[in-house]
Amino acid sequence: MSEIKATQIFYHAGAVTREERAKLLKQTGATLWFTGLSGSGKSTFAVALEQVLIQRGHPAYVLDGDNIRFGLNAGPKILVETRGYADDQAKRFGLAFSAVDREENIRRIGEVAKLFADAGLIAVTSFISPYRKDRDAARQIHEANKTGAIPFIEVYVNTPIETCEQRDPKGLYKQAREALAAGKGMGFTGVDDPYEAPLNADVTLDASKQSVEDGVAIVLNYLVKRGLVAA
Amino acid sequence: MSEIKATQIFYHAGAVTREERAKLLKQTGATLWFTGLSGSGKSTFAVALEQVLIQRGHPAYVLDGDNIRFGLNAGPKILVETRGYADDQAKRFGLAFSAVDREENIRRIGEVAKLFADAGLIAVTSFISPYRKDRDAARQIHEANKTGAIPFIEVYVNTPIETCEQRDPKGLYKQAREALAAGKGMGFTGVDDPYEAPLNADVTLDASKQSVEDGVAIVLNYLVKRGLVAA
Repeated sequence: MSEIKATQIFYHAGAVTREERAKLLKQTGATLWFTGLSGSGKSTFAVALEQVLIQRGHPAYVLDGDNIRFGLNAGPKILVETRGYADDQAKRFGLAFSAVDREENIRRIGEVAKLFADAGLIAVTSFISPYRKDRDAARQIHEANKTGAIPFIEVYVNTPIETCEQRDPKGLYKQAREALAAGKGMGFTGVDDPYEAPLNADVTLDASKQSVEDGVAIVLNYLVKRGLVAA
Repeated sequence: MSEIKATQIFYHAGAVTREERAKLLKQTGATLWFTGLSGSGKSTFAVALEQVLIQRGHPAYVLDGDNIRFGLNAGPKILVETRGYADDQAKRFGLAFSAVDREENIRRIGEVAKLFADAGLIAVTSFISPYRKDRDAARQIHEANKTGAIPFIEVYVNTPIETCEQRDPKGLYKQAREALAAGKGMGFTGVDDPYEAPLNADVTLDASKQSVEDGVAIVLNYLVKRGLVAA
C-alpha cells in the first residue's frame, strides 16, 4: 500500500461546486417532499422509491420519523434520557406537537434536506407536514439556497382519510377518536387538527388506487421528465 | 424517452441497508470531526480535504459555520428575519453562544453528520467545538446509530494560539481582547472561554508546521489505513 504524498494533492481555492458534485454522483440533487395524512402510505412510497433510486445508481436518502424524531428533533424526554440534558434545556430545545414545535420540526427537516440535496443526493422526506405555510417555508429554504436554487418537489399522498383510518397501522386514529370522545383532544391531524392539502403539488399519489410499484413509477417518470434522473 | 412501468419496479420490504449504499458509493460512510481554535486552519483543511476526496471519487460534504449557522442552527435574529418566527419562538429555538446553546449546536451537528455518514457519505464537520463533553456526545451519537456504529474520527487541529491570533482572519481575537480589556468578556474560546483539547485525537494537525497539502495527505493516509477510502 503506497503512501499518498503531499505533492500528489491538488486543490483550488473556494468550496466544491455543485457541478463537481454532480459529475461524481451523476445527478444534481433534489428534495422530494412527501406530505399526507398518517396512514396514507407516505413512508411506504418513500422507502420503496429510495431503494429503487439506489438500484438505478442514484444516491438517495430518506428522512422520516425513524431517523429524525429520536435524533435531531427529539422530544424533551429523549433529550434528558439519551443526552443528559437538564430539564429546562430539554424543554427549550426538545420538540413536541404544538403548532410552533411542528413549525420548528419542519424547518429543521427542510434545512437538513437542503443540505443533502446540496451535497448532490436525492433527499426524500416523509412527514405529515400538515400546514401549508410550513411546507412553503421548506420550499423557500431550497429556493434561497446559497449555492443556487435546489429543486423541491412536493409529493402529495392524497389517500382518502377513510382508507387511512381503516389501515391505522399504529392505532393512532383509534386513540385520537377515543381521546376526542373523552373530551381531551390530542391535536391529531385529520381528527382534531387540520390537514391543509397542497394547492399545487408537483406529484399526487393515492394508496387506495395505486400499488407501491405504481406510485414509485409515477415519481420516477416525473424525475426523468424533469431531467433529475436518467431514463 | 420510454416510460418506466410499474412492472419494472422491484423492491424489498424494509429499509435500504448500509451495504446497498456502500455498494453504490464505493465506500462506507464516516464522520471526520475537525476541532480546534478559531483561526487554527480547520476549515481550510476541511474544505481542501472535501475537494480531494471528491476528486478521488469519494462523495463527501463539509458542515461548517457557512451552511449551519445561517440555516439549521441559526440565531434568534436570523429566525425572525428570514423565517418570520415570533420573538419568543425565535428565542426558544435560535442558538446563541451560551454553554447550553453551544451544547445544542454541537448535538444537532452531530446528529446531521451521522445522517450523512449513514447515507454513505464522508461527513466533514468544522467547528471549534471546544468542550470535550460535547464532542464525546457527538461520538456517542455515531456509535449508537440504529443501523450500526459509524466511524467517528476526531481531527484535532492543534495550531498554537499565538499563530491563530496572528492570523485572526475574521478579527475576532482582536475584538475579544478589546472586550476583555474593557471588562465585558465575549466568552471567546482561547481568550475568556476554555478550549478543552482532545485527549485521544485520531489525527492531529498543526497549520504552523504543515501546508494544506500536508494536512490533507495525513488525513487521507489515515482514512486509507482504516479502510475507509481506496489507496
